[in-house]
Amino acid sequence: MTSNAPAVVLPFPGNEELAAEVAATLGTRRGTLALHRFPDEETGVRIADPVTGCDVVLVCTLDRPDSKLVALYLAALTARELGARRVFLVAPYLPYLRQDSRFHPGEGTSAVHVGHWLSGFLDGVVTAEPHLHRIQRLDQIFRVPARTVGAAGPIARWIRENVAKPVLVGSEGDRQAWIAGIAQALSCPHFMFNRLRHGDRDVELRLPTVAAQQERTPVLLDGIVSSGRTMIAAVELLRASGFSPPVCIAVHPLFSPEVCEQVLSVGAREVVTCNTVRHISNGIDLHRALALEARALLEQHPPAEAA
Amino acid sequence: MTSNAPAVVLPFPGNEELAAEVAATLGTRRGTLALHRFPDEETGVRIADPVTGCDVVLVCTLDRPDSKLVALYLAALTARELGARRVFLVAPYLPYLRQDSRFHPGEGTSAVHVGHWLSGFLDGVVTAEPHLHRIQRLDQIFRVPARTVGAAGPIARWIRENVAKPVLVGSEGDRQAWIAGIAQALSCPHFMFNRLRHGDRDVELRLPTVAAQQERTPVLLDGIVSSGRTMIAAVELLRASGFSPPVCIAVHPLFSPEVCEQVLSVGAREVVTCNTVRHISNGIDLHRALALEARALLEQHPPAEAA
Repeated sequence: MTSNAPAVVLPFPGNEELAAEVAATLGTRRGTLALHRFPDEETGVRIADPVTGCDVVLVCTLDRPDSKLVALYLAALTARELGARRVFLVAPYLPYLRQDSRFHPGEGTSAVHVGHWLSGFLDGVVTAEPHLHRIQRLDQIFRVPARTVGAAGPIARWIRENVAKPVLVGSEGDRQAWIAGIAQALSCPHFMFNRLRHGDRDVELRLPTVAAQQERTPVLLDGIVSSGRTMIAAVELLRASGFSPPVCIAVHPLFSPEVCEQVLSVGAREVVTCNTVRHISNGIDLHRALALEARALLEQHPPAEAA
Repeated sequence: MTSNAPAVVLPFPGNEELAAEVAATLGTRRGTLALHRFPDEETGVRIADPVTGCDVVLVCTLDRPDSKLVALYLAALTARELGARRVFLVAPYLPYLRQDSRFHPGEGTSAVHVGHWLSGFLDGVVTAEPHLHRIQRLDQIFRVPARTVGAAGPIARWIRENVAKPVLVGSEGDRQAWIAGIAQALSCPHFMFNRLRHGDRDVELRLPTVAAQQERTPVLLDGIVSSGRTMIAAVELLRASGFSPPVCIAVHPLFSPEVCEQVLSVGAREVVTCNTVRHISNGIDLHRALALEARALLEQHPPAEAA
């Protein structure tokens, strides 16, 4: 049974394109969420459209998350205060998932804490390619429905259309199966770097001995790229090993535009990313898939009174 | 009955002095809370001391609150994950209390939402001179014990010791009773400006006709000062009206050091604030009172199993 409540899609600043796609897919209206920063650096939220009795879909990617998370919390609670029936979130990038264990004594599993917090004020979440490693499924940290959109299919399509004879290259051990799947879809080889991490920004890569694929175009694949150090080191190592200029693909571009230039300057052919975070390198669309998943979420999780 | 669990006092960066006072008053140890900012601008929290079975007292004033609130949430949840029995907060400045009503259509009552959020992960709160106006008591927005320390007594003491013939002057209508109380304690006159607010940073003041006290030293009293516009306008108006250089006192100094210089340059004698937020103008101590109140909170709210 589908829900009959009208829905209102509210984009946070910078999320207007995705919100337009979601609204079009839901066949509903896009409203206006105004954020205001007071002189004391508190955040003011105003929802400029009636939401009483409505399902509200907040659209907000959550890179550089801390102040966005507070604004998100206030927006969700404001929607409820104004009478919204349910409040959902479409967040192409979901933060804090990498802190999925106690890596050092005295640390906490922030991924769980953030998931529980969001679950306390949202009725459901849609995201893209979440970083799941030690925590294997979002429902281990979310207490509300959490649906995901994969990036592997769109990335495979992009490579097929743009790279003649690819060899896929990964630097994150936990991405091996993901990369193998994309390689299988493309019927192309792949290999993984050996990676040693010495700190946030200090990563050492080594080429495995099996990687004699120098006649192919290397396609570096990564999930989240933030400092860009690994990508730069990987490009340098591939070039030094006799490979042709690699294509660099990341799902979530958290790095600054300057990193793009650096990657190109050390010998990459191009840098392409999914549009989960707005970036000059965006070239692979996930908005359409996110919008379809948002529709599925609203339809498959009708509120209690309509179930 | 008092609680017998050991307590650990954990200061956020910049709150070490108050934490030392709290730890000394509780007769307990001060631990180390390390915050780390990752390249992707997520916050990492590490508690470098054992807290299993302990009452943890986080010390964190909450000016410029958004990123601090996320760090506070993660620190509290990390303490619980590490086995803390209870988690308290000493926050000399509590934010978001001014958004205590729906001032415009589409807004929410952020004071309530933030209070509820904090109540969800803390066992109790101590703060100083909270901005209470339309919401009159903290227990209207907190679901856990919330104790307050008043600034009126310490401010009256400071004025008695530092200003010979004061006349107290207020610019916030909702502070009239508070100022009248301080004036009564000092047996000195007081008056209120008429204030018209046109925007965040646009305030118009008018001197009431009753204010012929030019032979006295005006003492401007305010609660929260953030942009400083009101204070500057008040000093200008008092000087233009024939008053001697006013002393400016604020409880919560959220303004930049440059505002201090501006206030002095338009004719103030000095600017003095309470040490709820670290500031060059700090001159009135509330740390001792906050520490005593923290002790009272821990003693008067024993955990269920000890009650």
